Amino acid sequence: MNQQRLVNTIRDKASFLCVGLDPDPARIPVHLGSGPEAVLAFNRAIIEATADLAVAYKPNVAFYEALGAEGWEVLKETMAAIPEGCLKIADAKRGDIGNTATRYAQAAFSAWGADAVTVAPYMGRDSVEPFLAFEDKWTILLAATSNPGAEDFEFHGAEGGQPLWRRVLEVSRTYAGAERLMYVVGATRPEWLAEVRAVVPDRFLLVPGVGAQGGSLEAVCAAGWAEELAGGLLVNVGRSLLYASSGEDFAEAARKEAQKNQQAMAETLAQAR
Amino acid sequence: MNQQRLVNTIRDKASFLCVGLDPDPARIPVHLGSGPEAVLAFNRAIIEATADLAVAYKPNVAFYEALGAEGWEVLKETMAAIPEGCLKIADAKRGDIGNTATRYAQAAFSAWGADAVTVAPYMGRDSVEPFLAFEDKWTILLAATSNPGAEDFEFHGAEGGQPLWRRVLEVSRTYAGAERLMYVVGATRPEWLAEVRAVVPDRFLLVPGVGAQGGSLEAVCAAGWAEELAGGLLVNVGRSLLYASSGEDFAEAARKEAQKNQQAMAETLAQAR
Repeated sequence: MNQQRLVNTIRDKASFLCVGLDPDPARIPVHLGSGPEAVLAFNRAIIEATADLAVAYKPNVAFYEALGAEGWEVLKETMAAIPEGCLKIADAKRGDIGNTATRYAQAAFSAWGADAVTVAPYMGRDSVEPFLAFEDKWTILLAATSNPGAEDFEFHGAEGGQPLWRRVLEVSRTYAGAERLMYVVGATRPEWLAEVRAVVPDRFLLVPGVGAQGGSLEAVCAAGWAEELAGGLLVNVGRSLLYASSGEDFAEAARKEAQKNQQAMAETLAQAR
Repeated sequence: MNQQRLVNTIRDKASFLCVGLDPDPARIPVHLGSGPEAVLAFNRAIIEATADLAVAYKPNVAFYEALGAEGWEVLKETMAAIPEGCLKIADAKRGDIGNTATRYAQAAFSAWGADAVTVAPYMGRDSVEPFLAFEDKWTILLAATSNPGAEDFEFHGAEGGQPLWRRVLEVSRTYAGAERLMYVVGATRPEWLAEVRAVVPDRFLLVPGVGAQGGSLEAVCAAGWAEELAGGLLVNVGRSLLYASSGEDFAEAARKEAQKNQQAMAETLAQAR
């Protein structure tokens, strides 16, 4: 999916909602049963209930890897269940070099059928460019994340220089295929988001941390908006939507949560025009 | 496997050789056939031919992930084929937070049967401690890697402060379970290795980059030796061993390459005493 199509989809759906598909077997409604089949049934119901409200879905690969070999099939089937018009993001946070990185990229883009994959920048250029070599695919690089541990390394060098996350933004813009980059920036500290937006005005940002983690949609939009990209934001909502109800009405409850988010997004988009 | 047992194994075998099991389907000898079964047959033959010469084996997970769902089984079977006395390292370079990290750790330690897993430090404490929570298991954190792109971020902050890799060493030592840490340090620039050793005198270092990538075993030992750990080094040899011959004698040729490395290691161990 190219950038213009993503922008059009956001305007058409009046939404920049990304649904995080991180299915915890312990929290899946009991009536769906258990095991990999229950996970797949859960995902399909969530996708069906939210398909007109979301522009992206983001399965976190760890949740599938933990299911064993069957998890691989569940991930592929989940990707296949996402409507074609939505961006399919494999949240894999992979990071390895050269041919090894190419194998991870092939797994994500070819085997799983993802449009985009999250990548960790630690090892530098030769760990990122193999992903960027895939045309019509997106590489979403970790920049400033929303977890407490982000303070350990992502801000290193800020005293007397620039923080690491800023160097990641600036250096990665020089990589071959950099026009296929997006960045992960946490919602919990919107002040970072404003700084990120200043460095990368022309790139989409994937923003986790709204909802269960405490980030505010309003603050995210105020800080990170890029009007020419219909905001340039993909705001991920995970647990608060997936587990809105633990009963047989889980999909309906998830839809209500998605609607609540989408309506707020529609208002922001309307105001920004 | 605890640290004392690893030290004893190194002294008993007079070796600190780690064999990198990164099987490229395109380079597997033709007579083994093709597909996941050929990969497994190849790995088993390499392990059998080198089991008395190596103290660790390191399958890189990308090579298995790229094989699809069957790759998962090949990885498990490969881990199962590694003799119990050897350290089984899943080279996964995972990096995610909290419960998600725990799922990756479960996949590596429980599902695949690894003793150790490589982890990327970018996201900080809450992306590393979930791995360290597994007792009798090892977390091998990326520090200063040997690839060209390492310059992009791993040295960030060095001007007027300390490089990122050094901060990774120092901060990670404060993590809960830090006694179960090892570090990845590339062989291609031994001067880093000496600096790493000065910061972490009491930890094992996993050293890739000897052989095909051009690092020298002699220089690695001179720079990174920790006598109380029988050197404290696990030197990985991959392609130069796996593909020593492309013919029916591939396992024999791999054994010769392993012997060459082991003999040099035995001499170093003997001299160091």
